[in-house]
Amino acid sequence: MSQNGTPKPHALRTAQPSDNMNNGFFGQDIISVRQFSPEKLTYIFGVADEMETLVRRFGSADMLSGKVLANLFYEPSTRTASSFMAAMVRLGGRVIPINEVHYSSVSKGESLPDTIRTLECYADIIVLRHPEVGAAQIAADYAAKPIINAGDGIGEHPTQALLDLYTIRKELGRLDGLKVAMVGDLKYGRTVHSLTRLLSRYNTEFYFVSPPILRLPEDMVAEVKARGLKAVEVEDVHEVISDVDVLYVTRVQKERFSDLALYDQVKDYYTVDPELMKMAKPKMALMHPLPRVGEISYAVDQDPRAAYFRQMENGMFIRMALLAAVLGKA
Amino acid sequence: MSQNGTPKPHALRTAQPSDNMNNGFFGQDIISVRQFSPEKLTYIFGVADEMETLVRRFGSADMLSGKVLANLFYEPSTRTASSFMAAMVRLGGRVIPINEVHYSSVSKGESLPDTIRTLECYADIIVLRHPEVGAAQIAADYAAKPIINAGDGIGEHPTQALLDLYTIRKELGRLDGLKVAMVGDLKYGRTVHSLTRLLSRYNTEFYFVSPPILRLPEDMVAEVKARGLKAVEVEDVHEVISDVDVLYVTRVQKERFSDLALYDQVKDYYTVDPELMKMAKPKMALMHPLPRVGEISYAVDQDPRAAYFRQMENGMFIRMALLAAVLGKA
Amino acid sequence: MSQNGTPKPHALRTAQPSDNMNNGFFGQDIISVRQFSPEKLTYIFGVADEMETLVRRFGSADMLSGKVLANLFYEPSTRTASSFMAAMVRLGGRVIPINEVHYSSVSKGESLPDTIRTLECYADIIVLRHPEVGAAQIAADYAAKPIINAGDGIGEHPTQALLDLYTIRKELGRLDGLKVAMVGDLKYGRTVHSLTRLLSRYNTEFYFVSPPILRLPEDMVAEVKARGLKAVEVEDVHEVISDVDVLYVTRVQKERFSDLALYDQVKDYYTVDPELMKMAKPKMALMHPLPRVGEISYAVDQDPRAAYFRQMENGMFIRMALLAAVLGKA
Repeated sequence: MSQNGTPKPHALRTAQPSDNMNNGFFGQDIISVRQFSPEKLTYIFGVADEMETLVRRFGSADMLSGKVLANLFYEPSTRTASSFMAAMVRLGGRVIPINEVHYSSVSKGESLPDTIRTLECYADIIVLRHPEVGAAQIAADYAAKPIINAGDGIGEHPTQALLDLYTIRKELGRLDGLKVAMVGDLKYGRTVHSLTRLLSRYNTEFYFVSPPILRLPEDMVAEVKARGLKAVEVEDVHEVISDVDVLYVTRVQKERFSDLALYDQVKDYYTVDPELMKMAKPKMALMHPLPRVGEISYAVDQDPRAAYFRQMENGMFIRMALLAAVLGKA
Repeated sequence: MSQNGTPKPHALRTAQPSDNMNNGFFGQDIISVRQFSPEKLTYIFGVADEMETLVRRFGSADMLSGKVLANLFYEPSTRTASSFMAAMVRLGGRVIPINEVHYSSVSKGESLPDTIRTLECYADIIVLRHPEVGAAQIAADYAAKPIINAGDGIGEHPTQALLDLYTIRKELGRLDGLKVAMVGDLKYGRTVHSLTRLLSRYNTEFYFVSPPILRLPEDMVAEVKARGLKAVEVEDVHEVISDVDVLYVTRVQKERFSDLALYDQVKDYYTVDPELMKMAKPKMALMHPLPRVGEISYAVDQDPRAAYFRQMENGMFIRMALLAAVLGKA
Repeated sequence: MSQNGTPKPHALRTAQPSDNMNNGFFGQDIISVRQFSPEKLTYIFGVADEMETLVRRFGSADMLSGKVLANLFYEPSTRTASSFMAAMVRLGGRVIPINEVHYSSVSKGESLPDTIRTLECYADIIVLRHPEVGAAQIAADYAAKPIINAGDGIGEHPTQALLDLYTIRKELGRLDGLKVAMVGDLKYGRTVHSLTRLLSRYNTEFYFVSPPILRLPEDMVAEVKARGLKAVEVEDVHEVISDVDVLYVTRVQKERFSDLALYDQVKDYYTVDPELMKMAKPKMALMHPLPRVGEISYAVDQDPRAAYFRQMENGMFIRMALLAAVLGKA
């Protein structure tokens, strides 16, 4: 949906129901977690619950039969790409996977807006992963069809943040009044930033656990505090492990470092193992956006508090809910 | 369909209706624009019109359900590959995308005929993009199943030529008696060659606008003149802009130049901008096969005469029409 | 299906019929030819026959509609990947192709078990091609959903062996008492090893034809002889050509050689041409797993005994049978 009001007469457009349809999701772009009011979150989480029931009972539905999704990934991301593909086909839709953008017309010098305007000639919705911050908004500015941001560099990755929040709600039964520790790379960790923003709307107590060079950006700490929320920065996860309801661990992303010596210093800073989990509450959620490279030992996988694979599954349900809502079928 | 009459007993073949079915398209290969008589063009354009109606009303159909297309791209081409994929799935068919041929059995030394004969064991129709002239005909010689040429080097790209012609007809309401300027790389531009050939059957006046080193090959100019058509070669687009019904602009393709100094000389030779469009007729079509890299400025996109994104959409309708016709369901 | 008994509570699991369903295939992993008793082979071959009928009559079915296959290829293999994709979509299922694993989370350091446990959150079954021996079993140990081994290095490639055996049965009408020559790279040739193992259960006479440096591993020769079967090793295919019912030719795989000088010595050791075929029995089967790079001349393709393209087609029918059986729908 164009953000600048310019009509895009070239794209296929069928008659559109009222914008109030599907709680306002119909035809909308999904660019940022900032778009999600508590009411919208509640709505999407409810639809995601229904999607889980649907998948467990029937495997799939034909709700989006006749609809085509262009899955446009400028960066590789097996996990996110597969999750969107599965979400679309489980709703009966079709997917055009476009993964090799480095070989394609882009390498012939085409701009993102032209690529997007071409793909919307073929597809009903576009999922975009792009290495540059702001790419999803640019795409949405030019596209008449809805765009879903599947990650734009160190910018936003709203579906990840939604699935994280949805997982917390499912694991702990509530969102208000939780103590949440974010652990690992808080400086570059996009998922941490988006989830922190979403959790700031609830009465959350934050613990930000990181090595000094990977601390949460100051403006984000200030943003949290400005909402009157507790935000404690510590270096040692042992200081907080016994208090928290959620331990959200992230990988230190090698690809974000230009100085690999710095990376080597911090890459093995934290390892969640059974010893550490002994200190944790009996009811808590250990989360990780995956992939992990050592932050959580395999020995923890059988722990019932290890929620990271359930988190993956929830990602598919959330994406099914968003696709259905945006395409007017939820 | 074998061109040399050799039966291919290894391939799946179901009972075939008369060859007259679908105006002779059933089971045929689509290799060259030379195959298209005016009657066949009229037939395919009519089916494409119906496909547009179908997509705008229902999104998709199940006309080709049960059919499988192998989308075999030896060269990257996001646009063409996506367009064929969308066309197939909007007709209810399934697609096996094969994009990474450089990694595959080809890199183990397999010949094109063997790859084709393998894929026709799995699929009902094969779309082939290949860097070498003549590859599509070789594939058709060996295959029992229909082959659609999606571009073979500087050879042919018949579906592009068809969608270009279809777009001209839709934009201007007729094909006869038009003044058409081809602009840019006329030497290597495959789309220009094929479209020129198709337009030569109508009473077209041609203007070939290019830098001296990228002029239309002499034999093509001769071919046009031999049909008694006007063919004017100029260097400056200003000389023709106010006269033409169609301005067909092409990108200078870097990948066709072995001497990059020559490329740099000509790459920015033409830029269509709002100033130039002021001189154009109020009813005309500005076309481009895309991707563009500067030949048409973004400021022109909102001009109602800018037809290039509609051209993309028409590509899907034309490919839907061809797939349906060749598979006997149009 | 977990081999170590550990329940995997994170994965989607619907109510499961008795394990006797589908002759014991339901929910099982397909890792090795060793899993296939003669009864199971007979069952799968019978289902494959039905799949051929289905494809020839209707093109496809909707038996697996609602099911999703993750086609996870860590190594390129156009042929095997396409065959599984075609098999799944001809049964009405959907495919998530994951071919570019070198770009994906694996390159971020993710382990195979984590990748598998992620994909089983989205898919109902996983087909895995991996360069390392044992990878498929590792995947099966961690996955709650069924894994099909599509080749693990020089380990196993069970669906290839099944399609080879199925082809022999179709071409010659029986499996017992055949004289079978294996020709080419018998040292590294995974397909030769698996097929030899399967044929050892029938009263087969083996001829192993190879250059000295590519002989069948001694333990495999011993395994065959231990079953009381004839196993003759020769260098010259002329010694056996007139006796055999099956001539199974393989490519010398460049990628298995670290010393390319050795490769050059043996790569052109054998060429099956019309001259050689004149010495063969009038009823016999010339087979090759393809791709070929010169071991069989193109002039042989029209020979009715040339079974290699029929072999390809049989691969799709066998894979359809396995997918249907494992997913409980055969």
